[in-house]
Amino acid sequence: MRMYDLIEKKKEGGVLSTEEIQWMIKGYTADQIPDYQMSAMLMAICFQGMNEQETLDLTLAMRDSGEVLDLSAIHGVKVDKHSTGGVGDKTSLVLGPVIAALGVPVVKMSGRGLGHTGGTIDKLECFRGFQTGLSDQKFFENVNRIRLAIAGQTAELAPADKKLYALRDVTATVAQRSLIASSIMSKKLASGSDAIVLDVKTGNGAFMKNEEDAIALARTMVRIGNMAGKKTAAIVTDMSQPLGDMVGNSLEVIEAIQALNGNGPEDLMDDVYALGSYMLLFAGAAADRNQAVRKMKDVIASKQALHKMAEFVEAQGGDPAQVYDPSLLPQAAHKIPVYAAGDGYICGMETEQIGVACMLLGGGRRIKDDVIDPAVGIELVHKKGAYVKKGDILSYIYANDLEKAGEAKALLQKSYTFSDTEYTAPETIHEVITE
Amino acid sequence: MRMYDLIEKKKEGGVLSTEEIQWMIKGYTADQIPDYQMSAMLMAICFQGMNEQETLDLTLAMRDSGEVLDLSAIHGVKVDKHSTGGVGDKTSLVLGPVIAALGVPVVKMSGRGLGHTGGTIDKLECFRGFQTGLSDQKFFENVNRIRLAIAGQTAELAPADKKLYALRDVTATVAQRSLIASSIMSKKLASGSDAIVLDVKTGNGAFMKNEEDAIALARTMVRIGNMAGKKTAAIVTDMSQPLGDMVGNSLEVIEAIQALNGNGPEDLMDDVYALGSYMLLFAGAAADRNQAVRKMKDVIASKQALHKMAEFVEAQGGDPAQVYDPSLLPQAAHKIPVYAAGDGYICGMETEQIGVACMLLGGGRRIKDDVIDPAVGIELVHKKGAYVKKGDILSYIYANDLEKAGEAKALLQKSYTFSDTEYTAPETIHEVITE
Repeated sequence: MRMYDLIEKKKEGGVLSTEEIQWMIKGYTADQIPDYQMSAMLMAICFQGMNEQETLDLTLAMRDSGEVLDLSAIHGVKVDKHSTGGVGDKTSLVLGPVIAALGVPVVKMSGRGLGHTGGTIDKLECFRGFQTGLSDQKFFENVNRIRLAIAGQTAELAPADKKLYALRDVTATVAQRSLIASSIMSKKLASGSDAIVLDVKTGNGAFMKNEEDAIALARTMVRIGNMAGKKTAAIVTDMSQPLGDMVGNSLEVIEAIQALNGNGPEDLMDDVYALGSYMLLFAGAAADRNQAVRKMKDVIASKQALHKMAEFVEAQGGDPAQVYDPSLLPQAAHKIPVYAAGDGYICGMETEQIGVACMLLGGGRRIKDDVIDPAVGIELVHKKGAYVKKGDILSYIYANDLEKAGEAKALLQKSYTFSDTEYTAPETIHEVITE
Repeated sequence: MRMYDLIEKKKEGGVLSTEEIQWMIKGYTADQIPDYQMSAMLMAICFQGMNEQETLDLTLAMRDSGEVLDLSAIHGVKVDKHSTGGVGDKTSLVLGPVIAALGVPVVKMSGRGLGHTGGTIDKLECFRGFQTGLSDQKFFENVNRIRLAIAGQTAELAPADKKLYALRDVTATVAQRSLIASSIMSKKLASGSDAIVLDVKTGNGAFMKNEEDAIALARTMVRIGNMAGKKTAAIVTDMSQPLGDMVGNSLEVIEAIQALNGNGPEDLMDDVYALGSYMLLFAGAAADRNQAVRKMKDVIASKQALHKMAEFVEAQGGDPAQVYDPSLLPQAAHKIPVYAAGDGYICGMETEQIGVACMLLGGGRRIKDDVIDPAVGIELVHKKGAYVKKGDILSYIYANDLEKAGEAKALLQKSYTFSDTEYTAPETIHEVITE
């Protein structure tokens, strides 16, 4: 087999066979196929696409390029939850304790944030002493005991994807459905869970700006998951504005704790219930989605989910007192209001720019090695659909550096669009895809 | 400027600016832009194409990546002739002496053959002692004295093209019109001639199999040449069968000498006159193409062109006696007939396979470092349109190795297609393009 022939075949619109894809990924992972051939292939794929079988083959080949975790030491049906990333997305922080409180094991590999979106690991590290570098033994022990553990991603999962992603990132070949789907799903399949629930964000704060693209991606990933023998569902959710009212690490943890106290914002809870109902359904812990939602509401109302959060934080070395008193979490020195410049209905928010504003404050990373400030961020007092008058407070900036606050404020003020006519905010849940 | 943004722009169908193309070629030549980004760009160009201005910009940027020859030391209008390559193409060997005999300077940089097509340098080296590595001074002296010099290509011309071509060759991005046109024209423009005449071959023995593609390529190259300020013409010529009756280095030299003696095959002479008439026209040595053709016929009839060939061979260290007695040129040990298996009109020839048969005999190179056997090759007794009976000799194989001869024979026999109905061979000249 020659890589040249495979590039030519794909360029001409041909279909790569299972053997060809396996050979290619094996060779690339082993540094036997050079980057310059792979990037030509990736660009050809951007134009010619991959069919369902090719996408599955690529996913499985990348999954098999490294370790596939064995989670059989954990009792029960393991359900993995993954979000394609957005601004203000603290869903995992609420879902983890809720699902675990219902007796279903939650084993999550999470990443750190980069660019305008945050990462679950960064948020959890707001708890004093919280550790994500758990040994396998400790990880399994925790899940079996309290049903919940969240660890940082280890490099061994799907190394082919890691290498390919780095190449796509510098050759403008990231935005292709089969490549995105196989990248996400190869890691999910390697992480050893029994079922997968995906939160596919769509809108101007998401990777998939366009709803059609998001739905197509969701469908592709669900099919890959199902073909690979894992129950898989995807919820396509709104990211045309931040999720919830808080953006920033400590602020998002505080909002998640409020949600566990029964005071979560409606859009965040819609997301939690939609994803959680499939997690419970796949785990056999609910007969149907309605029952699943009732169960989740119950463990929130009874504070069992909040206690589970405290238990989980403690189990990973953090201080559970911060769960019961969020004022003990990192606090910014300055809280600066941003005022509306005129009257009108908020009809648009530049969600990605709001994420960037948080990054500018120090709450996110421009490059991998940036150190983040957990305390800073943004509180959105009003979101899409709200009517505001000139001088009303639109949002607050939480900052430790007044110069950065000025930059963020300028960006934030430009992030709102107003309309004279009434505007209804979009639903949080756009689409549910299970096949 | 970032290469990433340029790749993205081209991928989305955008037009690269002059500055962007210059920056890209400069950076790539200086190893500042990595191969993996350039190959992604090349593949994007394969799908999105380049407009006329981009193609011109790319050509000029590659021309300027190295030395641009200064031929002002040579008196007269310098006209360069270039062929896109075919099987049996010995046109330059005839044209050079004919044009020089008419007082027009011919300065040619030629290459060696690779794959199924031969190279002029390999053919000239059939003359005992012939040298192509001339010093600049010797080269200029020769042209001024005898009006004709042919040298091997030096590496300094358009190094960006050399580097890009090597990358295209391994990433399936060779066959794109703007890339082909800019590759050829960057070297032609760097070689310092005042006008350019192109022989664009089309058919199953050519790089451009399809006539439409060949015409489009010819048009693109002519426009680039004209926009770059050089008079440029392209003749699209037939390569659906070998040119002339001889394929192989020494055999082609012998056929060229026959042509200079007035006994050239019709298709070869059509090619010579079509290209030569534009060379003379551009040089101001003829008032129109008809007069140009008459002048060429005259110098052949008077043997002036033959004497020019002898003078040229001697000037580059070769033995002129071989020009007057071609039997002194390398001769193969075996001459093996290939017979027709049935009756019929020859309606098809697998031209590329005939070139491959010659390569198998040792007359061509599979890889750059192969040593070639100048004596071997194929004589085509019958070509397209001829009626043959079972047992008639179709062709002769000239071989030094009987095992290789067997291989070549098998290939050659499969290279002919026969028809019961009369078949007319295609014209040699398909199209003349001057703007």
